[in-house]
Amino acid sequence: MATKTKTLAELSSLVGGELTGNPETPIHGLADLASAGPGEISFLVKAARLDRLKNSKASAFIVPFSFTYDDKPLIKVGNPYLAAARIQTFFQAKSFEAAGISPKADIGKDCNIPAETSIGPFACIGNRVTLGKRVTIHPGVVIGDNVMIGDDCLLYSNVTVYHSCTIGARVIVHSGTIIGSDGFGFATDEAGNHTKWPHIGTVQIDDDVEIGANVTIDRGTFGKTHIMKGTKMDNLIQVGHNVKIGENSLIVAQVAIGGSASLGNNVVLGGQVAVKGHIILADGVKVAAKSGVHSDVPKGTIVSGIPAIPHKDWLRASAIYAKLPKLYGELRDMKKKIEAVHEKLFPDEGQD
Amino acid sequence: MATKTKTLAELSSLVGGELTGNPETPIHGLADLASAGPGEISFLVKAARLDRLKNSKASAFIVPFSFTYDDKPLIKVGNPYLAAARIQTFFQAKSFEAAGISPKADIGKDCNIPAETSIGPFACIGNRVTLGKRVTIHPGVVIGDNVMIGDDCLLYSNVTVYHSCTIGARVIVHSGTIIGSDGFGFATDEAGNHTKWPHIGTVQIDDDVEIGANVTIDRGTFGKTHIMKGTKMDNLIQVGHNVKIGENSLIVAQVAIGGSASLGNNVVLGGQVAVKGHIILADGVKVAAKSGVHSDVPKGTIVSGIPAIPHKDWLRASAIYAKLPKLYGELRDMKKKIEAVHEKLFPDEGQD
Amino acid sequence: MATKTKTLAELSSLVGGELTGNPETPIHGLADLASAGPGEISFLVKAARLDRLKNSKASAFIVPFSFTYDDKPLIKVGNPYLAAARIQTFFQAKSFEAAGISPKADIGKDCNIPAETSIGPFACIGNRVTLGKRVTIHPGVVIGDNVMIGDDCLLYSNVTVYHSCTIGARVIVHSGTIIGSDGFGFATDEAGNHTKWPHIGTVQIDDDVEIGANVTIDRGTFGKTHIMKGTKMDNLIQVGHNVKIGENSLIVAQVAIGGSASLGNNVVLGGQVAVKGHIILADGVKVAAKSGVHSDVPKGTIVSGIPAIPHKDWLRASAIYAKLPKLYGELRDMKKKIEAVHEKLFPDEGQD
Repeated sequence: MATKTKTLAELSSLVGGELTGNPETPIHGLADLASAGPGEISFLVKAARLDRLKNSKASAFIVPFSFTYDDKPLIKVGNPYLAAARIQTFFQAKSFEAAGISPKADIGKDCNIPAETSIGPFACIGNRVTLGKRVTIHPGVVIGDNVMIGDDCLLYSNVTVYHSCTIGARVIVHSGTIIGSDGFGFATDEAGNHTKWPHIGTVQIDDDVEIGANVTIDRGTFGKTHIMKGTKMDNLIQVGHNVKIGENSLIVAQVAIGGSASLGNNVVLGGQVAVKGHIILADGVKVAAKSGVHSDVPKGTIVSGIPAIPHKDWLRASAIYAKLPKLYGELRDMKKKIEAVHEKLFPDEGQD
Repeated sequence: MATKTKTLAELSSLVGGELTGNPETPIHGLADLASAGPGEISFLVKAARLDRLKNSKASAFIVPFSFTYDDKPLIKVGNPYLAAARIQTFFQAKSFEAAGISPKADIGKDCNIPAETSIGPFACIGNRVTLGKRVTIHPGVVIGDNVMIGDDCLLYSNVTVYHSCTIGARVIVHSGTIIGSDGFGFATDEAGNHTKWPHIGTVQIDDDVEIGANVTIDRGTFGKTHIMKGTKMDNLIQVGHNVKIGENSLIVAQVAIGGSASLGNNVVLGGQVAVKGHIILADGVKVAAKSGVHSDVPKGTIVSGIPAIPHKDWLRASAIYAKLPKLYGELRDMKKKIEAVHEKLFPDEGQD
Repeated sequence: MATKTKTLAELSSLVGGELTGNPETPIHGLADLASAGPGEISFLVKAARLDRLKNSKASAFIVPFSFTYDDKPLIKVGNPYLAAARIQTFFQAKSFEAAGISPKADIGKDCNIPAETSIGPFACIGNRVTLGKRVTIHPGVVIGDNVMIGDDCLLYSNVTVYHSCTIGARVIVHSGTIIGSDGFGFATDEAGNHTKWPHIGTVQIDDDVEIGANVTIDRGTFGKTHIMKGTKMDNLIQVGHNVKIGENSLIVAQVAIGGSASLGNNVVLGGQVAVKGHIILADGVKVAAKSGVHSDVPKGTIVSGIPAIPHKDWLRASAIYAKLPKLYGELRDMKKKIEAVHEKLFPDEGQD
């Protein structure tokens, strides 16, 4: 339960906004337009939702600069969604409370675990593991030998981190996620039998990454699989061995990234996208949901489809796809006519 | 091991069937046509499978009303598949045996857990958790603070339920499933850095829902993610924050449902379907496997494709898709002819 | 850390290669071209990568027979990728060290567990479980009653094996994988309510299978789900009830295989493929990533697309798909011309 209270002026200052209405209005929380009540602030991303704002019981609103509304106090900002997230983060932030190491956890030898820690029951920490300050390890988490985890990380229940992986600071990993499993690498003989490639590489997750639930991130065959600073990953994503994902990228649920593929910074992959192994998606590339990317994509390009093509082309092609039955009929009809005409005008050429 | 024995008459009465043959035939189990032996009953869904029935060693069969067969006793019903499921449920049903709370489980403070319970080793129950009667919690399950779980629920191993979620009665959750992880919500600044939206909502699962293995169901940003009575979900499904799924819907494996999407009652989503966030699928909508639904779908409609279009249109369009190379050649040929003809008939217009 | 050292002659003999250069060259490890250092061997799969070989600090290389290079010793083989995997396997192989049963594990009644075993903390073994020799069970693994696991198996953390499943020898199962959950089988009444089919079947995994992380393999409704010898599965794969997968098949990440589908030997399914239930994919079938297979596929065929068609057809059709907007414009233009021409030549027929 959030029990902080701030004046509207203090909140406006927090997000660099312009305030209209009573600056002393006390605010103790943030909620969406439908559920916010007195003493809470809400937010309006698009001016078109004015009706929902009028029906809201919130005591104040975060709105775009262009927006005017006289009945209640406003904080005007360039990006209301971002300002609301920051104010909500302020209200929901809790100082770390070290619960210590549960007597029901299992801790290996030669670990480096600061006093400021919370390790739940049935968590299992391997040998020579280093944890940063204020790390929270939920119940049932299994950390392999020689793993390093930075300050302020939060690993939810039943996460597994295989041996020798490294995780930066302020990383959040949701339940059931697997970091460092062997990649899918086999060499096949003439009889069709597969010899497993031992995976001697690791996984490196940099600062401020968030990883959803039941994600799988394979370790490198050699070298490392690497997810860089600030990238956010949704649930049930597959990251192959030796993949590189740059900074501040967004990977939506159920994406699969093939081995050794390389993604730049601020890349966005929609849900269920597949990226072929060994290809390069440059900075700022966006891939629409369900697409399959088979080849390199240059900087800033938006692509869609299987195989992925420029998004505008895909929009037009997919619209025509739906008309194919009609077009097919027209084509049959035109063909008949053109044959008749051609026959009449060029009788000597015959049918080819 | 099922050790119940019933007469055919009793079984027929259980499913409201019409009996032919000896009503006193003793039956102790149900199996499929290929594996059923003497003393067992089997079932025939489609009359066309007569040959497999003839080869079956079962002592009796559940068949459609229209079906006749003189060699063995029959239970005739309108829906043999349903009748067989009910008879199998009868044979396999076991009364709940309370194993109690394993001394190796970890139970938080101020919980409300009835004596009639089974909680396995290394299960971890948070504070202020309420369990209904006859709940079974398998080993390694982690239940967060303030969770409520109804009567007769069954949670298989290594399930995680985050804090404050509620689960109705007779809900089954298979192993590795995560309920209540944070949704994928971030606000991005001009430099491309993402600020996490704290997720203060919850998840509500209503009565008689079944959830497969390694599913992920995110909690609401505000309010709740809600799965209603009788809905059944397969494995590896992603349910985004604030999604609503109505009653008795069927969600096949690896589906992804985007945040705030709303599904009606009796909706069927085929495997690997993706539903865009914020759209509405009305009651009775069916979506073919692998489709991507980008916009609202009206009641009872069947859709397919990426983007999804009416199923009949998709069937025709996809058939023509396979012919595109041939059509392309015809088009080239027709173009040549029409240019020649046009040139001859309208020489003054030239080529455009 | 690998601390074995072999001469180049010994390694060449291990893989049946032809050696050029000093046979006494000592080698203590294998790495990729970029990271290999002195004392290590590397490998070149394609002759075209000569530049990377020249820049490598490795002391020797495994190369194709056709390849020549005078500066450093070579092992020439028919399949350098396979030879390298075998040499790496040799360097990385460790003899099994029995850690015994952790006092923090939970072992059921009447189990058959040899002394040569390693069972980690918080692993939970049911009743009447049989383990082969040299089995490694990582922390948090849950094994149900009556499970049988063969020699030299390795189950990583937080794996769940439901009751009565059987696993052969030398099987590797990565973290979070679920074996034996109930399949998605329901019978629906006229009101739309679903009756669950009790799943009384099992799962059988044969020798030398490897299963990735967070995979789900459902048990049979009756009979068994069966994965045969030598098949390798990537992460996040869904295997429905009663599926059969033949020997030495390769199933890439996020594939879904519908109930009762049957795959032959040496089948390859690309990432995110969906296989419809009850269909048959014969030996040697290959399915391109993201395809949806709706019907049986004959031996050795390569298919692509949704629905899947022969791969060559799909390549051409998908190339034309991208041109549909251009073709559509041409078609409009042609239609106009043909109508004009037709009108002029056959004025009596009018427009149809």
